Amino acid sequence: MNTNEFKNIAKKGPDDRTAIDLGPVGLGGDSFVIFAGPCRVESRTQIMEAAQGIKEAGGHVLRAGAFKPCTHPHCDWGRGETALRELREAGDTYQIPVITEAMSRSQLPLVHEYSDIIQIGTRNAQNYELLRELGEYPKPTMLKRGTWMNLRETLCQAEWAYFADPARGVSGNPQIFMCERGSVHFNDHMRWTLDLAMIPSFKQVSHLPIIVDISHGTGGPGNTAYYRDLARAAVAVGADGMMVEVHPDPARSMSDADQTISLKEFAGLVDAIRPVAAAVGKQV
Amino acid sequence: MNTNEFKNIAKKGPDDRTAIDLGPVGLGGDSFVIFAGPCRVESRTQIMEAAQGIKEAGGHVLRAGAFKPCTHPHCDWGRGETALRELREAGDTYQIPVITEAMSRSQLPLVHEYSDIIQIGTRNAQNYELLRELGEYPKPTMLKRGTWMNLRETLCQAEWAYFADPARGVSGNPQIFMCERGSVHFNDHMRWTLDLAMIPSFKQVSHLPIIVDISHGTGGPGNTAYYRDLARAAVAVGADGMMVEVHPDPARSMSDADQTISLKEFAGLVDAIRPVAAAVGKQV
Amino acid sequence: MNTNEFKNIAKKGPDDRTAIDLGPVGLGGDSFVIFAGPCRVESRTQIMEAAQGIKEAGGHVLRAGAFKPCTHPHCDWGRGETALRELREAGDTYQIPVITEAMSRSQLPLVHEYSDIIQIGTRNAQNYELLRELGEYPKPTMLKRGTWMNLRETLCQAEWAYFADPARGVSGNPQIFMCERGSVHFNDHMRWTLDLAMIPSFKQVSHLPIIVDISHGTGGPGNTAYYRDLARAAVAVGADGMMVEVHPDPARSMSDADQTISLKEFAGLVDAIRPVAAAVGKQV
Amino acid sequence: MNTNEFKNIAKKGPDDRTAIDLGPVGLGGDSFVIFAGPCRVESRTQIMEAAQGIKEAGGHVLRAGAFKPCTHPHCDWGRGETALRELREAGDTYQIPVITEAMSRSQLPLVHEYSDIIQIGTRNAQNYELLRELGEYPKPTMLKRGTWMNLRETLCQAEWAYFADPARGVSGNPQIFMCERGSVHFNDHMRWTLDLAMIPSFKQVSHLPIIVDISHGTGGPGNTAYYRDLARAAVAVGADGMMVEVHPDPARSMSDADQTISLKEFAGLVDAIRPVAAAVGKQV
Repeated sequence: MNTNEFKNIAKKGPDDRTAIDLGPVGLGGDSFVIFAGPCRVESRTQIMEAAQGIKEAGGHVLRAGAFKPCTHPHCDWGRGETALRELREAGDTYQIPVITEAMSRSQLPLVHEYSDIIQIGTRNAQNYELLRELGEYPKPTMLKRGTWMNLRETLCQAEWAYFADPARGVSGNPQIFMCERGSVHFNDHMRWTLDLAMIPSFKQVSHLPIIVDISHGTGGPGNTAYYRDLARAAVAVGADGMMVEVHPDPARSMSDADQTISLKEFAGLVDAIRPVAAAVGKQV
Repeated sequence: MNTNEFKNIAKKGPDDRTAIDLGPVGLGGDSFVIFAGPCRVESRTQIMEAAQGIKEAGGHVLRAGAFKPCTHPHCDWGRGETALRELREAGDTYQIPVITEAMSRSQLPLVHEYSDIIQIGTRNAQNYELLRELGEYPKPTMLKRGTWMNLRETLCQAEWAYFADPARGVSGNPQIFMCERGSVHFNDHMRWTLDLAMIPSFKQVSHLPIIVDISHGTGGPGNTAYYRDLARAAVAVGADGMMVEVHPDPARSMSDADQTISLKEFAGLVDAIRPVAAAVGKQV
Repeated sequence: MNTNEFKNIAKKGPDDRTAIDLGPVGLGGDSFVIFAGPCRVESRTQIMEAAQGIKEAGGHVLRAGAFKPCTHPHCDWGRGETALRELREAGDTYQIPVITEAMSRSQLPLVHEYSDIIQIGTRNAQNYELLRELGEYPKPTMLKRGTWMNLRETLCQAEWAYFADPARGVSGNPQIFMCERGSVHFNDHMRWTLDLAMIPSFKQVSHLPIIVDISHGTGGPGNTAYYRDLARAAVAVGADGMMVEVHPDPARSMSDADQTISLKEFAGLVDAIRPVAAAVGKQV
Repeated sequence: MNTNEFKNIAKKGPDDRTAIDLGPVGLGGDSFVIFAGPCRVESRTQIMEAAQGIKEAGGHVLRAGAFKPCTHPHCDWGRGETALRELREAGDTYQIPVITEAMSRSQLPLVHEYSDIIQIGTRNAQNYELLRELGEYPKPTMLKRGTWMNLRETLCQAEWAYFADPARGVSGNPQIFMCERGSVHFNDHMRWTLDLAMIPSFKQVSHLPIIVDISHGTGGPGNTAYYRDLARAAVAVGADGMMVEVHPDPARSMSDADQTISLKEFAGLVDAIRPVAAAVGKQV
């Protein structure tokens, strides 16, 4: 690994770490930040209920999709600005910052307007036009690692968004953080294989924060049975936070129902990781 | 595989095949179509020389990059419209259709203006905004399979571009064809593993043509030693064509020099596949 | 790739190729050798019928299991010496050499006694005790590549069997040849991904023959639909032969029924590859 | 996953867990068991020093190779019985149980005679003759998961060794435990990808203990920098123990020097995981 390739995101020294201010909580410091919420904003009632429950249980950031990427084109693409407005209201009402995905340049202005944090999904991990555009939207922005990308490519992804290209009049976004969300792999009992060694590997080179998505990072029916163990492992391995799918009524979740837990289960999950966080010097 | 998912690209019967008119040659019929050229349009002289040599050796389509996707941001992004103009001139002069990549919506108008065929790269294989936009640019369009995508996802990729979404006022592009270009894999002596079984697998379900990129499909120093064998295998496995990197002076190629062959080697390659093509009822 | 590592199996020059005498046919020369037969020797009648049909259709070697490796222990381990005796009789009656697997040292004497060619399976690809023992059984021996092994490890596997260790009083077996049979991979519509680029890669370094198993190399329901195309690709890519599962009555095959073709389909397969073989200077 | 396939190793209820008595420590209960030691027994001095340091630092089991599997045949196969004798002496002197690998049936009697725990390596993960033989050697036995094996195959591996085949007069070994040691993968900055989700996945089905090898589970130059984080993650994810390579003088280690830590570093590692173990109800 030639770390000179990464002029902007490479650590200047062993203790060089970027902290990103998410409002009530800081990412990249001593807090283990929990991003939770439903796959989609399905209704005002659903997202308000989710926000309240997640905040009460100790979650720090509310996640939910307004624009939904779909592998298959004949699908429901989400409720767009209506969903963004509801998400914003839920965040304001329960004083919890919100994150949602922008799938394209054309969605960035709206997402930037309504959301506290911008999410760029795994399918756009090497969509350079989109990565370059992030400099125009100066908010904390989470990049999901591509499911096919090795460490160098992951570092390049962060460098792209952070740096953009001043020489061409395009400046980057210094509030970038990464999300590990599993890789394609030969295993077949889960949809993806979660590469937790990516956390210390990335942190060895870069000063940027990195979190773990335990829901999409494994995927598929039955993976909720492992959330407690994977969440604890994410804390222990040194991640700066985690993301998990939570729904007020998982059985009625319009998507990803299989990998979604209830508010009560979420509260249990938060409790289960607190002692591990404490053991590694983090607070939840 | 539920082929009902693919309403538009699924075959209606065993002999349902789409043929795409590329001008002097048809893709998806009895011809094995050879796409060849340098990684980049480096200069007018270089691309004119490449066009002439490729046409004389029996190549059918001239490929070369004007806009270059770069894993690392501190790189040369190509010569843009200048390159497109030179590519167009080379195509016109030597009567050979040209293909070049559009990396983003903003590049589509220019690429559409200058190029006979539009290429969408592997990194944008699930960039749905870009795929949807293709309906606005009614030219033959090649989609490279994502290096991480299984058969269903590959079929979805084609369905996206072909179908778009009429209900939302977005129509697709019926002149879509695919390009197999290798997958991420544990092997380390080449950069990617070329999955030739993807050709009959894709054709079992879809009526669209599919070609093989033998250069990027393996990748890395030394892979040119296998071009003859891989090209023959691509013909024999039933692909509708292939793509290969060819440069008038490979050692001076500004990029991908390792995986680029000379015009003379290219002529030998074309000769080497002719008998195999004949053996499977194709003509080169 | 440091080819000095492979003192014995590395080519001494570009044309250095080992030919192995299989009786009526030579492996590693101008012949494309077809190994065909049922997964298991199920009965005398079945294997006699298979032998006759395969010989008549143009197959060169009869394959069938007497000892069966089973991923799951609660399984049928094959009919052992009874099966070997029937396989031998079928080979003698129809004048076709036979190949069958030895799963362990303890099975080697019997397999050596009854079979013309010894097969070592993928699960034993790094079972060094077994590889070393092969020097004691001087017959042509086929090693299946491990589904997890990269090029270097595959070359090491061949070097182990070929070389053994004279310094420790263990000599090797110079009649070794390899079989490519697919790799673990993220694809899910077939069981394995067939890496045809392994053929020229292996031949670039080693003088040993290498064949392709198109049945196990893909695996799973439906893969027989691709046998014609994969067999043609195997010839075209430069393999010295191929292996395919054939049964007089596939629907009643005790194992691997999904990936087994009938004698009539086999005859069509052989006919389908003849012109491709001729096109690359091989004869079937 | 059809758990009925695993009659013997499947859990009878959610709390069904096997505990294996390793002497001073029990595996599969509330202890997190640390297996540590050099790659090889290089000399009496080396292994005595290692045993003393590991015991003092809080390690529970001394690991070291007497017979060494080598991917390449022209290698040093270890010091055999001499090494076993020294390992035994080190274990007795410092009252620490020892584990070492048997690569073959012929090595089992000696390994059984000298060692407290038998190790079967990843290359023999589907060497059924060896797995079946384990019933004859009634000692705790660790099976390393094959680097290519999915969950079902891993469960089959354990079922093989545990069950063998009483109907054929072969009984199994009920003191089996598993070791997760990474998978083949496309990543290239480490040699293998450690699949920590395999721990809860395996435990969901089976009552057998499972540990994590953090050294071989990642592999390659530089991975020692991640040992603290990976060890903590192994504890947190619910593993019953871990294995790590430790040498009195890593720089002079005859093999695997890159992935070996010193006794002092090992002591720091043990200290680093204690609070995490406590946090998840385990003791180190």
